[in-house]
Parts: sequence; C-alpha cells; structure tokens
Amino acid sequence: MSRLVYVLNGPNLNLLGKRQPEIYGHVTLADVEAECRTLARELELEIKFHQSNREYEIIDWIHAAREEAGGIVINPAAFTHTSVAILDALNTFEGAIIEVHISNVHKREAFRHHSYVSLRADGVIAGCGTQGYALGLRRVAALIEPVAVAA
Amino acid sequence: MSRLVYVLNGPNLNLLGKRQPEIYGHVTLADVEAECRTLARELELEIKFHQSNREYEIIDWIHAAREEAGGIVINPAAFTHTSVAILDALNTFEGAIIEVHISNVHKREAFRHHSYVSLRADGVIAGCGTQGYALGLRRVAALIEPVAVAA
Amino acid sequence: MSRLVYVLNGPNLNLLGKRQPEIYGHVTLADVEAECRTLARELELEIKFHQSNREYEIIDWIHAAREEAGGIVINPAAFTHTSVAILDALNTFEGAIIEVHISNVHKREAFRHHSYVSLRADGVIAGCGTQGYALGLRRVAALIEPVAVAA
Amino acid sequence: MSRLVYVLNGPNLNLLGKRQPEIYGHVTLADVEAECRTLARELELEIKFHQSNREYEIIDWIHAAREEAGGIVINPAAFTHTSVAILDALNTFEGAIIEVHISNVHKREAFRHHSYVSLRADGVIAGCGTQGYALGLRRVAALIEPVAVAA
Amino acid sequence: MSRLVYVLNGPNLNLLGKRQPEIYGHVTLADVEAECRTLARELELEIKFHQSNREYEIIDWIHAAREEAGGIVINPAAFTHTSVAILDALNTFEGAIIEVHISNVHKREAFRHHSYVSLRADGVIAGCGTQGYALGLRRVAALIEPVAVAA
Amino acid sequence: MSRLVYVLNGPNLNLLGKRQPEIYGHVTLADVEAECRTLARELELEIKFHQSNREYEIIDWIHAAREEAGGIVINPAAFTHTSVAILDALNTFEGAIIEVHISNVHKREAFRHHSYVSLRADGVIAGCGTQGYALGLRRVAALIEPVAVAA
Amino acid sequence: MSRLVYVLNGPNLNLLGKRQPEIYGHVTLADVEAECRTLARELELEIKFHQSNREYEIIDWIHAAREEAGGIVINPAAFTHTSVAILDALNTFEGAIIEVHISNVHKREAFRHHSYVSLRADGVIAGCGTQGYALGLRRVAALIEPVAVAA
Amino acid sequence: MSRLVYVLNGPNLNLLGKRQPEIYGHVTLADVEAECRTLARELELEIKFHQSNREYEIIDWIHAAREEAGGIVINPAAFTHTSVAILDALNTFEGAIIEVHISNVHKREAFRHHSYVSLRADGVIAGCGTQGYALGLRRVAALIEPVAVAA
Amino acid sequence: MSRLVYVLNGPNLNLLGKRQPEIYGHVTLADVEAECRTLARELELEIKFHQSNREYEIIDWIHAAREEAGGIVINPAAFTHTSVAILDALNTFEGAIIEVHISNVHKREAFRHHSYVSLRADGVIAGCGTQGYALGLRRVAALIEPVAVAA
Amino acid sequence: MSRLVYVLNGPNLNLLGKRQPEIYGHVTLADVEAECRTLARELELEIKFHQSNREYEIIDWIHAAREEAGGIVINPAAFTHTSVAILDALNTFEGAIIEVHISNVHKREAFRHHSYVSLRADGVIAGCGTQGYALGLRRVAALIEPVAVAA
Amino acid sequence: MSRLVYVLNGPNLNLLGKRQPEIYGHVTLADVEAECRTLARELELEIKFHQSNREYEIIDWIHAAREEAGGIVINPAAFTHTSVAILDALNTFEGAIIEVHISNVHKREAFRHHSYVSLRADGVIAGCGTQGYALGLRRVAALIEPVAVAA
Amino acid sequence: MSRLVYVLNGPNLNLLGKRQPEIYGHVTLADVEAECRTLARELELEIKFHQSNREYEIIDWIHAAREEAGGIVINPAAFTHTSVAILDALNTFEGAIIEVHISNVHKREAFRHHSYVSLRADGVIAGCGTQGYALGLRRVAALIEPVAVAA
Repeated sequence: MSRLVYVLNGPNLNLLGKRQPEIYGHVTLADVEAECRTLARELELEIKFHQSNREYEIIDWIHAAREEAGGIVINPAAFTHTSVAILDALNTFEGAIIEVHISNVHKREAFRHHSYVSLRADGVIAGCGTQGYALGLRRVAALIEPVAVAA
Repeated sequence: MSRLVYVLNGPNLNLLGKRQPEIYGHVTLADVEAECRTLARELELEIKFHQSNREYEIIDWIHAAREEAGGIVINPAAFTHTSVAILDALNTFEGAIIEVHISNVHKREAFRHHSYVSLRADGVIAGCGTQGYALGLRRVAALIEPVAVAA
Repeated sequence: MSRLVYVLNGPNLNLLGKRQPEIYGHVTLADVEAECRTLARELELEIKFHQSNREYEIIDWIHAAREEAGGIVINPAAFTHTSVAILDALNTFEGAIIEVHISNVHKREAFRHHSYVSLRADGVIAGCGTQGYALGLRRVAALIEPVAVAA
Repeated sequence: MSRLVYVLNGPNLNLLGKRQPEIYGHVTLADVEAECRTLARELELEIKFHQSNREYEIIDWIHAAREEAGGIVINPAAFTHTSVAILDALNTFEGAIIEVHISNVHKREAFRHHSYVSLRADGVIAGCGTQGYALGLRRVAALIEPVAVAA
Repeated sequence: MSRLVYVLNGPNLNLLGKRQPEIYGHVTLADVEAECRTLARELELEIKFHQSNREYEIIDWIHAAREEAGGIVINPAAFTHTSVAILDALNTFEGAIIEVHISNVHKREAFRHHSYVSLRADGVIAGCGTQGYALGLRRVAALIEPVAVAA
Repeated sequence: MSRLVYVLNGPNLNLLGKRQPEIYGHVTLADVEAECRTLARELELEIKFHQSNREYEIIDWIHAAREEAGGIVINPAAFTHTSVAILDALNTFEGAIIEVHISNVHKREAFRHHSYVSLRADGVIAGCGTQGYALGLRRVAALIEPVAVAA
Repeated sequence: MSRLVYVLNGPNLNLLGKRQPEIYGHVTLADVEAECRTLARELELEIKFHQSNREYEIIDWIHAAREEAGGIVINPAAFTHTSVAILDALNTFEGAIIEVHISNVHKREAFRHHSYVSLRADGVIAGCGTQGYALGLRRVAALIEPVAVAA
Repeated sequence: MSRLVYVLNGPNLNLLGKRQPEIYGHVTLADVEAECRTLARELELEIKFHQSNREYEIIDWIHAAREEAGGIVINPAAFTHTSVAILDALNTFEGAIIEVHISNVHKREAFRHHSYVSLRADGVIAGCGTQGYALGLRRVAALIEPVAVAA
Repeated sequence: MSRLVYVLNGPNLNLLGKRQPEIYGHVTLADVEAECRTLARELELEIKFHQSNREYEIIDWIHAAREEAGGIVINPAAFTHTSVAILDALNTFEGAIIEVHISNVHKREAFRHHSYVSLRADGVIAGCGTQGYALGLRRVAALIEPVAVAA
Repeated sequence: MSRLVYVLNGPNLNLLGKRQPEIYGHVTLADVEAECRTLARELELEIKFHQSNREYEIIDWIHAAREEAGGIVINPAAFTHTSVAILDALNTFEGAIIEVHISNVHKREAFRHHSYVSLRADGVIAGCGTQGYALGLRRVAALIEPVAVAA
Repeated sequence: MSRLVYVLNGPNLNLLGKRQPEIYGHVTLADVEAECRTLARELELEIKFHQSNREYEIIDWIHAAREEAGGIVINPAAFTHTSVAILDALNTFEGAIIEVHISNVHKREAFRHHSYVSLRADGVIAGCGTQGYALGLRRVAALIEPVAVAA
Repeated sequence: MSRLVYVLNGPNLNLLGKRQPEIYGHVTLADVEAECRTLARELELEIKFHQSNREYEIIDWIHAAREEAGGIVINPAAFTHTSVAILDALNTFEGAIIEVHISNVHKREAFRHHSYVSLRADGVIAGCGTQGYALGLRRVAALIEPVAVAA
C-alpha cells in the first residue's frame, strides 16, 4: 500500500497556538507540521500536510488521496460535527483513516460529542494535544505495514 | 511526578485474543502486557499491569495509584458505559489519565458511544487496536515529562 | 414559464460510478448528464447540468436559476441533511423543484432521513437509482406545461 | 421476471379528486387507473389495480402478488405511517416495490414523515401528484427489464 | 479599543429585498449598508461591510477582524443554525459581537430556534427588521466606548 | 397609532443593580426608567414604566395597554419562561411588542432558552444590558411611525 | 344543513357495560343508543347509530356520512390513538364532528393521551361517562342550527 | 351532596368576546354567566361564578369550594398548562370537577396539549365553544344527583 | 377454569415457513397447529387454533374466548406493535394470556421492541422459534390448573 | 451572620393536616410552626414563619430576608416545579437555603421530580414528613454557626 | 454439542420466595433448582446451578461455561438492565442462551423494559413465574439437539 | 421495631475528607462514624456502620439488615445512579430507609439527578454535608418510634 499519508486540518486550525491556549495550547500548526515531517521520516512515510477553512477543499483533498495515498490523518475541527459531505468523501477512501482532536471533545459542549467522521474513521484520538497527530501517524504506519513499524 | 503508570483493564479482557477476533483481533492480554513493558523501558516508565472482571478491584487499584503513580492508562471495557463509581475514583486521581478502547466504539451499538470515564480522562484513544495501549503510554509519558520524551 | 431546467448535484457526486457501487451503481455523472440531455430533447426542455463540492456554488446556481429557469432538479447529496443555506436559496425560487436521491435514504443511517430540501421541494424521488433524474425531469416538464407533456 | 405489476391503493383513495383538492387535486382514482393502463401498454406491462380501506385486503393482495407479479406500485395512504403488517407482507415479496405519495408528505404533519413501507420499498416518489403512479410504473419497468425500457 | 466594526452577512442575504418580502421586507442589502455607514459616522465608528454565500469567507473575515476590529455585527443567516466553524472563529475574537436576525426566528421553523453563534455573541437582536443592524451598531459602539456614546 | 408605550418589567427586577452584578450590572431600574424617559422625549414617545413581582399586575397592565398604547417594551424576567398567561394577554394586544432581556439568555441555563413571549413579540433583544430598553424603544418608535424616526 | 347525525363507536364498545365496569360503568351500548334516540327527538335530530371492531367499516360510515349527514359523534375507542386512516376520512367530512371518550383518557396510560381524531374534531368530550354522547349530540345540534337549540 | 357549583375562570377570560374572535367567538363572559345561571335554575343548581387573572384567587376559591360546594366547573385558561398549584388545590376537593376549554386545545400550539388540571378533573370538555360551560354544568348535575337530572 | 385454550395468530403468519426462513425457519403454521394439538392432548387441554390478517377477526376471537376459554396463547405478529384495539380486547379477558414471538424481537428493528400486548399478557415468550407455542401452552396449562400439570 | 431564619411555605400548605392525609399526614401548619419555634429556641435561632398561596408574597419575603436573615427554610410546594421567579429571588439571597418537601417527591408524578429551587438550595430534604422542617432548621443552624450547634 | 447447561441467577434471587411474594411467588431458589434437576434428567441434560449477588461471579461462570457448556439459562435479575459486562461475557459464548424473568418485566417500571442480555440471548421468557426456568431448559435442550427432544 | 440501624456507605467514601474537599469537605468517614455513634446513643439507637466499594457487600448488608434492623441510612454514592440491584435489595427491606448525599446532587452533572434508591427510600437528604447522616438518623429514630424521639 502507498506510504503517502495526507494530514488534513479543518477550519480555524490556521490560528492554532494563537487563540484559546487554555484549550489548544501554544504549539502552532507549522510546529505540528514540522513534528509530523520528522516522525514521518522515522516511520518511512511521505506526508502531504494541508489546512483549510473551506469544506470543499478538504473534500477535494480526500478525493485526491483516493488516487495516491495509503492513509489519512484528519483533524476535521468544527466540520467533525456538521459535515456529512466530508464523511461521504471519506467513505470513498479505502486506506487507513485516523481522526484526531487536540482537546478531549467529550468534556466540552454537547454538540462536540458527536462526530460524523467517526462513522468511517478506523481510529479516533482525542485530548492528546498536538501529540495526537504523531500518535495518529504511528497508527497509520502500523495499518499500512502492520508488522515492520513498532508502536 | 512519579514515572509509575498503572495500566488497568476491565471485564472480559482476560479473554482478549480468544473471543470475537473480528472485533478485537488475535493479540492476547499477555501480549499487550509484554508490548507495554518493552515500550515502558524505552520511555523510562515503570508500569503495573492489571485486569479484573470486578469493578471494585479497579476502584481499589485507582485508589492505590493515587498513592504512588503519575499516570493511568485504562481500558475500562464494559464498565466504560456503566460505572459512575470508576469515574468517581478517577476524579480523585491527580495525574494523567488516558482511556483506551481497542475497537472504534463510535461505530458499534449506541450504548457504547457514551463513556463516563471520558468525563475525567485527559485523552481518549479508540479503534487503534491493541496498539492503543502503546499510544496511550506515549501520551502519559509526555504528560509526566512533557519535554524529554518524543512522541 | 421558462423551459430551462437546472440539474444540480451536490458533493462527492463527481465520483459517481467510481465509488461504493453497491449503493450508487456503476453509472457515472457524465452518463447521467447524457441521459438527461436526451430526455430533455424529447420533453422539449433545455437543461444546465452542474456538480460541485462547494455549497456556495450550488447556492449561486440557484440564484442564477431564479433569473432564467422554470424548474430545478436537485440531488443535494450530503448537503440534503445539513444545509439550511440551500433551503433558504430554494425558498427564493418560484418554479418547480424536484429533489432526487439515487439511493433510498430512508433505509440508510438515521441522519440521512431528514432533508432540509424537502421542506421546499415540490416532489421527492428517492431510491430509483440514476433513473431518478429522468423521472424528476418528467415531473418538472409536467409542472411547467401541465397538459402538453405526457408522463 | 413477470411483467405483471400490482398497483395498490390504501384507505380513502376511493375519494380521490372528490375531497381536499388543495392537497390531492381533481384527478379521480379511475383517471389514475386509466393513465396507468395506457402507460402500461406502452411499457409492455400488465397491471392489476386495486383500492381498499381494509388493511387485510392490501395484505392479501401483496400475498397474491408474491405468486404472480414482478413488481408493486403502492400508495399506502394512511397505512404508510401505522401498518407494520403491510411492511411485513412486503418483506415477503421479492420483486420491485415503488412507494408513491401524491402529496409531499415531508411538508405535512410530523406523523406523516415516517413510513414503515419505506423500510422495504426500493424507491419512494412523493409530491409528484398523480403523475407519481406513472413515474413509479416507469421505475418498476426498468427494474423488471433494466435495459429494454427507456426512462 | 479599535473603533472599526465588521458587519458580516451570511448566505442568500445578497437577495435581500428581492425575495420573500413578507418575511424580509423590501429593503436591499445595499440600503442596509448605506444606513449602517450613515449611523457609523454619527457614532464615530468605521465599518467594513461584507456579504458572502461562502462559509469560509465569513471565517476569513472574522480572522481578519481579530487583527484590527473592535466589534462585529453579524447576521449569519442560515449558517446561524449549522456552522460550528463560524462559532469557533468567533470564539477567537476578543471584541464585542452582536448577532442580528431580520425576522423573529423564534416564530419560524423549529430548526431556526437554535443558534451556534449565540453561544459566543454578547447580544442578540432578532425580529427588528433591517433596523436590527443599526441597533446592533449602537450596542457595539456602547461596548467599545461605554460612556461617550448615547444609546 | 398611539405614541404611548408601556415599559413593563417582571419579577426581581426591583433588585436590578443590587444583586448579581456579574450578570446584570450596576444600573438600577430607576436609572433605566430615567434613560427611557430621556430617550422617549427624543423619540416623541410617551411612556408608562412599571415593575411587578406579580404576574397578574403585568397581565392587567397589558390589558390597560390594549386601551391606550401603541407599543409595549417588556422584560418579563422569570415569567418569560413560564407564563402562558402573559403570552395570552400579549396575544390580545395589536400594537408593537419588543421583548428585552438584559443578559444573553442563550448562554445561561437551558430553561432560559425558551420564551413564551417570543411567540408573540415582534422583536427580541437579549444580552445588550440595560441598553436593550433603549434599543427596544427605538424599534417600537420605528414601528409606530416607520418613516419619521431614524434608528 | 342536514339534521342527520352519525353516532359511531369503535372496537370493543360492543362489550360496554359488560367489561371493566370500574372504568366504563354498567351502561350497555344499547342503553346508550336508546338515550341518544330519546335526546335526538328532543333536539329534532335524526341519528344513525353504529358500532364496529373493523376500522374499514368506520371509514365507510364516515364516507357515507359525507353524502347525507350534518354531524358525527364518534367514540373511536382504541382507534383514537392509532388510526390515521380514520383521521383522513374525517378530514373529508365538512360537517360538525364531536369526539367522545367515556373515561378521562388523560388519567390513563400515556399512549391514550394522543388522539389523531382530535386533529380534526371540532370538540372533544372525555370522562363524562356515557353521558358524553348526550353532551356531544347537544353540541352537534348547536353547530348545525346554532340559535334554535338551547344547550 | 351540596347543589352549589363553583364556575371558575382563569386569566384573560375577562376579555372574552373582545379579543381573537376567530378563536374564542363573540360571546362575553357576562353572557356565559347569564347562560349558566339560566341553566342552573333548570338543573336546580346554585352557582358562584368567578373570573381572575390571579392564580391565588383561583386557589382560594377552590379552598372555599371545599367548604360548601358539590362541584366545580373550571376553565383554567393559561393556568391549565402551567399551574401545579391549582392542580394541588383541586386534589383537595372531593366533589365533581369538570374542566372546560372554549377552543379545541389539541389543534393549537403543542404547549396547550398538556393539562395539569386533567390529572384531577373527572371530565374534560374542549372545543365546544362557550356551550362547553353548559355541558359541564349538565355533567356536574348528573354526578351530584346521577339519576334525577336528564342529560 | 375452562381447559379450552385459544391459539391466535396475527397477520402474515399464514406464510410461515414460506418466507424469510433466516428469521422464521421452515416450519409452517399447519405444522405448528399439529404440534399444539399433540401437546394439548398430553396436557389435557382443548384448543381452537386461528390465524388472520384481519385485526377485527382477532378481536372477535378474543371476545369469543371471553365466553368459553380459560386461556389464550397469542402471536400478534405485526399487530403487537400497533394495535391498542387488541390490547383493549385482551383487557376484557380474565383468563391466562401468553404472548409468543417466534423471533427474538429485541434484536430486530427498534419499533419491534414495544408491545401493547405485553401490557396485559401474563407471560411473554420470544425467540424460541415455533417451540414458543408449546412453551406457551405449558404455561397456560399450569395457570389453569397450577398443581396437576408438570412443566 | 444573622441568626434570623425565614421559614416559608408555598400554596395549599394552609390546608396541611386537613387534606390527603395518606400523603401529607395529620399535622397542621400551626403544629409545624410550633415545633419550629420550640426547636429554634433550642438552637438559639429566631424565626419568621409564613405561608402563602401567592407566588409574589414568597418573592417579597425572600427579598425581605435579603435584608435581615441568615437562612431560609423553604417548602415551595407546587411552586417548586414551576417558579423560575422564586429561583431568581433565591439567587439574590446570600445566606443558607434548605428546601423541604414533606413527601418523597421522587416517588410521585414525574413532574414533581424536577425542582427549580434545588438549583440554588444548599440542601434538600424530602420525604421526612413535617420533621423535615426541624431537620432543615438544624442544618441552617449549622451553616450559620458551623461549630457551636450539634446536629 | 455438550449437554451441560449452566443455570445462572443474579442478585437478590437468594431471597426468592422470602420477599415480595405478590411479585415473585412463594417458591424458593432451592425449589427452582430441584425442579430444574428433575426436568434435566428427563431431558438428558446435566446442569450447574448458581446464584450470586456479584456481577463478577456471573461473568466468571459464563467464562467457565465457554469451556464446557452447550447452553445457558440465565435470570440476570437487576443486572439485566445495567450490566454491559455480562452482555459482553455472553457475547463470547457460542452455545444457546435463554434469558428468564420470573415476573413480566414489561408491566413494571420503565427501567425494567430494557435488557442488555436480550441483545445476545436466543430467547427470552418473562412472566411465567418460576416455571420459566423449566421452559428455558426445554428450549435449550431443543437447541442443543433440535430433533430428539419434544417440547 | 428493632432499634438497630445500618449506616451504609458506597464506593469511594473511604476517601472522604481526603479528596475533592471543595465538594465533600474535610470530614473523614471515621469522623462521620464517630458523630453517628454519639448521636445514636442520644437517640437510644444501636448502629452498624459499613463502607464498601463493592456493590455485592452493600447488597449482603441489606440482606443482613432484613434479619435484625429497624432502619437503614444509606449513602449509596455512585451506586445511587446505576444500581438496580441495590434498589431491589432495599425493596426487600421493610423498615425505614433514609438516603443521604453529602453534596446537593441536583446541582451537579445531569446523570447524578436520578436515583434508583429514591424509588424505595422513605426520605432523601442531600447537600447537608456530613451532617446529613445525623439528620438521617434522627428521621429513622422518629420512624421507628414516632412519638418518643424529638427531632
């Protein structure tokens, strides 16, 4: 299976580290991308890292991933709770999908407890801060090549 | 903070790898313990690994963890959805808590979507198979000593 | 009334015929467009056929239809269940509106049972496969010119 | 597959065209039957056309259809929302089933939004007036002989 | 605090005054903008006035407002009820936020009774027609400079 | 239409400015009345200003308003959520009605999200502090004499 | 308007006076019919009195009433809570309809609190025992000829 | 049992015949009282007839009725849906209680479908216009002296 | 008590053994009747065995059972979930009632989890296949003559 | 803190001991007051003891208590479940508040399970009969002077 | 398949026959065991009969049954409604499972209507008193050896 | 009636005074026991005081109490909300039962608002801190010997 992984980020994550640090911390999305790239080299994965406030761009990236990627790590942010369109796009993808949330959404407002994306994701990692991306990549690596990569 | 981590497992997990492999896979709990011990050495953590079908034993272990541990990785299994008593015990614990589910509970029966434990856990990892324990240990390690341990 | 009909398609329908054939079959959207054009000639209708993963494009097309079209056949796909904005746009349109779903949404996940679009649509056709577009065009034709076009 | 189609009508439809024309229009059930027979000849289908205010007669006709018919077009009227018995009868039928509602039930009282029949029907056509029967017959024709009959 | 105020308008409001006058009246969005500019001069505010059918543009404008504005008057229209992404964007804004609805949404369909935006807005003005914008500006002015500007 | 406006205040508002300043601020009801009288002169309105902890007095004042007033500005306080009797009284009034809440009730306990009064009020202003009364008067003035009074 | 009134009785009422006297009393349906006929003479009404355990017979009688009756007094018994078909039949009737229940259904099981028939009935009389029929006839008489018949 | 009957009327009924005639008709409460007195003489009942917008007055009258009356006819108006206190007062009364609503509350807003008073009332008469009072008196008369008074 | 037992079967059970064998198995209703008759002889019971798709026939048989039977074994099939009328009929029966379902209804669609009949039945046997009838007969026998018949 | 305690009683409690003794017992409110005064002397408290059927009087007493009392023992009776106004009044009180119910409301009708007052009360005592007042006074005494008064 | 059957009993059943005889009768658990042993001999089954108030013991017995038993008859008592852990244990068992309740739980409190165990059990027998165990054994016998054992 | 009272404490109460003092205060369970013993002597009661994290031990103690005790004071802690088994055990006890909660559970998470134990308890005392035990003992004393023991 392809060792290319898409790491996709939903709306408002461009402000990561600049807003509401009591919820999201001080790490920026650029920091996250850098950490992901470092870990990806270790795990012998290639990654494409994107963020958008546009639902359709995320859908388009998922469609692109269908053509070339073996896995997706996705933090759908607010779209987690509202986008059937992203769910439907993910339903067309056949590789590994890990859903990541920086905060523990189960401790927040009730409307954040339901995720459309979880209906398709293989795994869900929430409340592990920005480390969740790294954990997600490790899981995708294991699913693409279950034996060779240690957790 | 103490580098001792309790890894706690709820009811029926003694049968792991022996029942319903289409949901839970073929890895046994002894295998999981071995993998946790190996990773713990790498992360310079000490672990105590327990399983019980008895709610009170899990409560007692959490009370014991209050005295000596810096973190808890817990797969409460069926008690996830029904035990306010375990939640209350965890509420008395001041270290890091990561909740692990082997399967993606959000894709299963509706009664498995709600977790009392999530109301206290710092992070939740679901649907990453038995690798979820390793990911949980990595997160606990990072919370105990946020800088020194790489994800 | 204008004999121009907009045929609008929502997110992920660009993948029609390429994904989940057990739900959506093997016909592509290009095939659907061709069949619609053939039938439109027979019914003496003109059609404009669009697809987008972007909610705003669908809204913009509906706004355009207000200026020139006598009817709309719309398969809102995932937006069916989430887009009040598309409902509001359709509420500004005074011609005939037929909502089409390829699969029988009432047999699928509970969140697919509610449609915002149905609150405005004149008719709803679900579960007739891609033939639903043709049936929808026949209905629009009848509403534009009730007597002259046989069903 | 048999080219015989049952067209079944539920309670109060004997009054069609004589009551509440603002909802149901002025076409009578005899008119509908005539239109269905004309279209059936075109589609090379044979039809049996029935109406009853009796739930058990509709069940009995469905049982009869099991023996000889390739498809059913059914407007269950009020039984749509209350009859598990008709659903269970339809569940014993192996041919094509199209459910028809003259009005767009989704715009009416909340209790009209749920259909037991939709849990079995292959397709559902609502709000297309009495033309819905013709559209339903076209769909059944396509399902019985998918290639030969144009939509 | 900055005396710049963003006035943001959600989907379909480009049609204001041209559609459904029984709900929305005959005033166009250009008229609203002109009235806002007149009042802003009186209140010694500067305003940026935008409308979009695109959720992401509204998010982007809110992000821009973070950099330079002291307040936001927002009529999220249909996005009121569905956009967690706009709520999350507003949660990153530290100035005054007034939510405006032209109609009294509490008298309309049940799905219009819930607002994600109200979870962050300081004030909500509904059912005051297009005058609601002026009232909203007055409130923002008072919040930016509580003493000097009379209501 | 009569330029007399009733400004009505429900239970506990006699304590305004003396209790829970974190929710309701430090302005007293006498201050509010003074501000309303000043603005009323500017808007060429006459006002009658009342407060009561008694539901029936509020009903009686609404009945009196039927005889002589062109508008009502009402802050029903706790009765907002519980008094069908006040709603029924307002339903007998034919002039303009604006409902005012000092705090943003949508951010408070769930039982404060529903308002019986909103089912009749023309407009609702919440979370604008005591300035909400002034904004409400401006709206009533505009409804009584839509052209001559600027917002 | 016709002075003929149908008095219709639903399932199990043939056992009236013979079962569960603690709920329904000791009066038989024959007694009720006799009392109705006596009162009808006084009110100068003609009545047709029917009972059936068959939903379709009640529908057929309502259809017949459309042709000749000015009013219907109906005790739908168990069909009250389940029959949309009877509601739909009553919706086709243009005269006065009074719904009667012998017991106070609001004090019994929750499923007896909802009545489909009440969505069409002009008046509802519950818990007045078998006298409810007489009260219902008086109301129908008043509606047919509002002035001449005293209550 | 005492042949004195209290006829009690809740809030806003002092406006009967003067407001919303499409719902409540043109008969005034004075007319209702006169009709009740006439019928009471015929039925050999004595009546006390009251109306109040004050919940406590209605409670006080019910307490008074405990001392001297054999029955109560009550139209609680808006208090029907909100007053547990009136229910509790009625629970202390041992005579006959008939609840009257002028309009058919089951056809109006959902919050009017629930009645606290029905949990105690012996009978409920709704949608019979102001004739409902007369029907209620007839029922109370029959309960006080079941045999001697014809319905 | 009479040793006559009615065994009643609801709609579609005439097709038992001929449809959906994965749910209902291959035993026909004639087979069930034969087994019941054999066991009845052993238990010294007399039985009357009926099936109908007509709700009223089942009601009529229950009314007949009131006159002569000591017990009823009833598989109401689809009427289980919808028929208040059958419940009301059973409420008039004073002997033993056992409700039987061939499949375990609690594992099937949610609407099959509720039974009106269970509100009256003495016992309920579900998911024991057609053997459920035999078990039901044994229970009725024990209730009619508690001591003499061994389970 | 002031040692004055208000003991407040809601509607219908003037009938205590005279109505429904199976729920409320035979002790009258005068007896309760006497017992409270005796115990108050022992606890060195002063008490003011009131009962009213008028919501506003209870509100007014709570406002008075703000000026002089250290605690409130309140049995809101029916207002428990319906009065947001009393809750709001209590929210302005800074001393100790104990809510008392004579019966165990959790065993009675569902609408008695919810208490607005409990959202503010420090403690709740239910089902201890009229002794609940004494227990409530003991608790208030302990809160006013936590050490000196033994429970 | 093994002819060993576990008969398992949940909490408080050790008091059977000693408590609440109006619900549970006078037969003790020892009587039940004796009856089961007698019938087991007749059916050529071997049985192990256990009762515990401890959830974990029931889980442990189910785990033991996995190793040696062909069927389980289980009366989970209170655990029926609360124990996901027992459900999960039963999910690991591959033999026949019959759930027994002595009383008809569907007639009791609402929380007794839901059973986790029913989601796995093959059959459910409720309300047949202690005879339910015998009926359950008969069913297990038939499932283990479908042909040889008569019902 | 026996003057022996069981005082039972549920899970995590062994940590009382050592955890979450903002909710539970600083008094330990040993302190509570000492206070109970002191008061018991005053009230001439004997007490047995127990705590367990094990549901079954609490059940066993209740069974023991059946044999010898006149009353139970129980703080079921987390089991309050989840244990039907404890409710069922308490249902077998015929003496006085008082349920105690240290905190006011009605102000905490929604899942703490429901108590199974309250369905059987005679009285409930919540939010009176550890003094609640003393108040509970006083109530039990009064119920065992209603006259002789003053509150």
